Order: sequence, then structure tokens, then C-alpha cells
Amino acid sequence: MENKKIKIAVSIGDLNGVGVEIALKSHGKISKFCTPVYCINKKMLKKASNLLSLEIPNDFNIHEVKGEFDIKPGKVSKKSGKFSYDSFTEAIELAKNKEVEAIVTLPINKESWNKAKIKYKGHTEVLRDFFGRNAIMMLGCKKLFVALFTEHVPLKKVAKAINEKDLTKFLLDFYKSVNSDKIGVLALNPHASDNGVLGNEEVEIFKAIKNANKKLQKDIFKGPLVPDTAFSPASRKNLKYFVAMYHDQGLAPLKALYFDQSINVSLNLPIIRTSVDHGTAFDIAYKQNRELNCKSYINAVKEAIILQDKR
Amino acid sequence: MENKKIKIAVSIGDLNGVGVEIALKSHGKISKFCTPVYCINKKMLKKASNLLSLEIPNDFNIHEVKGEFDIKPGKVSKKSGKFSYDSFTEAIELAKNKEVEAIVTLPINKESWNKAKIKYKGHTEVLRDFFGRNAIMMLGCKKLFVALFTEHVPLKKVAKAINEKDLTKFLLDFYKSVNSDKIGVLALNPHASDNGVLGNEEVEIFKAIKNANKKLQKDIFKGPLVPDTAFSPASRKNLKYFVAMYHDQGLAPLKALYFDQSINVSLNLPIIRTSVDHGTAFDIAYKQNRELNCKSYINAVKEAIILQDKR
Repeated sequence: MENKKIKIAVSIGDLNGVGVEIALKSHGKISKFCTPVYCINKKMLKKASNLLSLEIPNDFNIHEVKGEFDIKPGKVSKKSGKFSYDSFTEAIELAKNKEVEAIVTLPINKESWNKAKIKYKGHTEVLRDFFGRNAIMMLGCKKLFVALFTEHVPLKKVAKAINEKDLTKFLLDFYKSVNSDKIGVLALNPHASDNGVLGNEEVEIFKAIKNANKKLQKDIFKGPLVPDTAFSPASRKNLKYFVAMYHDQGLAPLKALYFDQSINVSLNLPIIRTSVDHGTAFDIAYKQNRELNCKSYINAVKEAIILQDKR
Repeated sequence: MENKKIKIAVSIGDLNGVGVEIALKSHGKISKFCTPVYCINKKMLKKASNLLSLEIPNDFNIHEVKGEFDIKPGKVSKKSGKFSYDSFTEAIELAKNKEVEAIVTLPINKESWNKAKIKYKGHTEVLRDFFGRNAIMMLGCKKLFVALFTEHVPLKKVAKAINEKDLTKFLLDFYKSVNSDKIGVLALNPHASDNGVLGNEEVEIFKAIKNANKKLQKDIFKGPLVPDTAFSPASRKNLKYFVAMYHDQGLAPLKALYFDQSINVSLNLPIIRTSVDHGTAFDIAYKQNRELNCKSYINAVKEAIILQDKR
């Protein structure tokens, strides 16, 4: 069995945050179902483990990332930002060169990236640029996954972004990535517009659903669903995958239900990448006498394995 | 104790739907904490109870509403629409004349109202027109209540509706109605705009919160809250009342969490009105061998009593 375990590159995240502690504490657990390769270096790992008073496990395999600096728990820092970016790009290279089968990312800090003059706002943007592909952002846990048709867009600009052509492509790309036989597609307007009384974007959504189902020769996509009841318990009994038209439409219900367990997945890319769905938690980094929730990280590792199995 | 129970007028809803069954089945339970007065007439009540094979309780007090027609389970009908509207206006009159202390409404059917040439789309509109006051729509249950700053508005028009003046007034009216010492106010944009990167409506929301808190001389209103984490378990531990900027921002998380238990409350009116948060359920009206969920109705009655106590 041992040699069947998949190799996963772990991008270590911002070393001033909680990422490295999560990695150290979860190593035993995730090693049961994968072989992690941590993108860090010995000196930095030693510094972090000393600060945390944690032992470094014997089989904690490292892929060397250059750089050394003093860890300052909870601080925005240029050096820490640079290191977290380098850890991530090393992980991408490993995946691209097929030395690992997937990447799991621990949280970076956007302000630290900014200080280090890194032009990207987050992991997904780097991946889009690196692979020249329109990555799909999906968040959730095994009970509920939500893909976002629009992401970091002001609310007033969302309606204009809804069109038949782009949405059809998105739905087909999404289907190829998750391969589910039933996917709910949300309407844009309250009550799914009540037959056009409250907006008209549902016409575009309806057409995109029809196009995609026709192309797939199967009624995979259901909708446009009334947004406020799409995530009710009865609806979720029937559907596990949803496409939301905008950020908060999908993520507010998801986080109301499954905040701790949720992960972030980048789909529609040549490589597999999953991530925790939380930040660096600077307020509790390197603190004693408090619980550390590692569920999101462990779920991210598990989902990477599931996605690898599907390929 | 008996004479301390408050009197509540029950508007019977569409008689082709599930409302009257809910009323008959819940009478024993709600009579323990209030004195209901049902706006219907003896003939129609007899017809409904026969069709349902349910006894009419002895103390089932009626306030006479004129009209007689054949009940057609699950059918959109002009006569049924008219009767449900008349039941509602009789209930309003009872409350206005202080013969009852509150109204609880069972569901009407919008299409049936339309067929009966009733110009309103729902209960709240009737109340606004009748009292010439800007009723506030709040939905929820005792664990979580959400008031809607905008209601049935196409999504693309929401951003324009956000302004300091109207929102300040809304917040002050809402505070007067619920009298809670902590109320969360949601931002409009993803990540609450990330300091203006994703929209600018948060500036207006911030000012309105500041104005309202200044006027009340207390930090009642918290926000603008990041919309996708506002309803996370940690946030809900701290806050029970929320103001959402638009329909689905508040109702999708609410219904994901508490679909069955939720009710609809009209605030900022001279009378108290609460309602079930579900429709006529035509698909299961007058059917045998199925469960009927009366939670929303019973919660609506309980909330009417709570609101009366606060006055």
C-alpha cells in the first residue's frame, strides 16, 4: 500500500501565521493517506518548531525553499511575504514537473505579499497567470460545494457579468472538473426574478443551462434555482454541488453551515490545488493554551486525493 | 391567568392551501398562551374541517368573514383569493380597533389575489398602504433574525439604493422595533469591499451606522460586517439581529440554517403582525398520510406575544 500513496506538495504559507503549526500538528494524520513534501527549509522549520515547542517528525520531508529571516508571530512582513510566495511557486513547479500529484496551500497574508512587491492578490491569481487558464474557484466540504461564477467583483457589477456564452463555458468546464451528475445553478435575482418581474438575467442563466445540458446530452444542471431556498435542508438533500452567480450568494450560506470544515479548491487547471479556507490567523499565531482547528487543512488534503482519484 | 392571555386575530390564508389545517391542528397548542380569533365563517370552516376529517374545537372563536365557495384543494382561484384577502383586512380592522392585540397571518396565494383583481402582491404591501408607514420586513426565528433594507428589488438595482440618509432612518426605526442592544449591519460587497477595492457603498453604510449609534448614544450597530462570514457560527454566538442590504444576502443563510422554524414579522407599524414564512403548499393541501410542519405558525404566534410584551 505504501507506494500507492500520492505525493502532495505543501506550500507552507506565511511563517508569521498559523500555517506551519497546522502542518506540524497534522503531519501524523495526513501521512496515513498521502506523502507530504513541505516547501520550506531546515533552518526555518527549526525556528518555527522551537518557537512552537513542537518536535519535527522524522519523516517530515522537505523540498528546499531559499531564504532565512526571524519569525515575528502575527506580524505583516516583507520577508515573510516573500518566503510564502516562494514556497508556493516551488510547490507549483513540483506539480508541473510531476514530482508531486497535487498542491495543498496553507494561508498567505495579502498585505505581506503587497509589502514584498508581489503583484498578485492571492493563490488563485498566481495560478491563472502561471498556467494561462481560467481557474474555477470552488469552496466547500464534502457535504456542500459551491463554485463561483464571479468572484471578487463589486456587487453592482455582477449583473452585467452574467451572459449565456461565458456561463455555458463555465458550466461545461465545471462539469469536467467535478464530474457530478447533478449540479444546481443559482438564479441572480430574488425569487429567481418571479418570471421577469425582478430582473431579467435569469433568461441568460436559463439558456446557459440548456446549452450545457444539450452538449452533455444529460440534464446535469438544474435551475435557475431561487437563491434563498437553494441551500435549504430539503434542497441540499438533493444537491451537493452548486454554481453561485456571485461571491456572497454562495459563500454566506456555506460559511453559515460549514465554516470550520470548508476548503478552497482551484479547478480547471493542469494541476490539482486545494487550500484551507481560512487566513493566517495572526491573532492566535504561536500562542499557547488555545485550540487550533486543523479540520480545513485535513479536508483540503483529503479533497486533493479525491480529485487525483477522479483524474 | 386566563384573562391575561392576549387576543390574536388569525387571518386564515388561502382556503385551497394548508393554512386552515395548520390552524385547526395547532389550536390546542396556541390556546395555551393566547386567545385566537379566526377570521373565517362557520360554513367555510365546516367545509374545510369536513374535507380534512378534523373536528372543530369547541373554543374555536370566529370573527365572521362574508363569502362562500367550494374549496378546491391546491387550485388557484379567484374566490379563494378574494376570501383570503377579506380575512386579512378583517384582521387588520380588529387590530386597528384594538379588539385584538396582534395579527398572525396564514399564507395567501399571489396568483389567486391577482385573479381576484387585488392590486397588492402580498401582506406587507397591504399593510404599508393601509397605515401609510414604511413597514420593515424581518424574517427569522429566536436564534437569528434578519431585517431587509431592500426587499423585492432586482440585484442590479440594489447598490444604488444604499445611501446614508435612508439607511440611518431604517436603522433607527429597526432599533425602536426590536430594542436589541447589539445589531449587526452587513456590508454590501464581498470582503466588505477590502477598503474600497471592491466597491464603495461601505462608506455610506459606515456613516449610517455612525449616525444611528450617535443618536442612540450607544454602540448598538456593529459593522459593516463582511457578508460571507457574518452568519458563521462564531459571529452568531455574538449577534442575533442582523440588517441585510438585500433579500438573498440575509435570507439564503437564514433558510440554510432555519428553514422550517422561520417566520416573517412586519415591524414599524401601529399594529403587530407576524406570519408563517412559507407558502400555501398547494401540492400537499388536504392530503392524507403526510406530516404537516406547524413550527413556523406556532413560532409566529409566540413572536407576536413577545412583541406585544415589548410594547
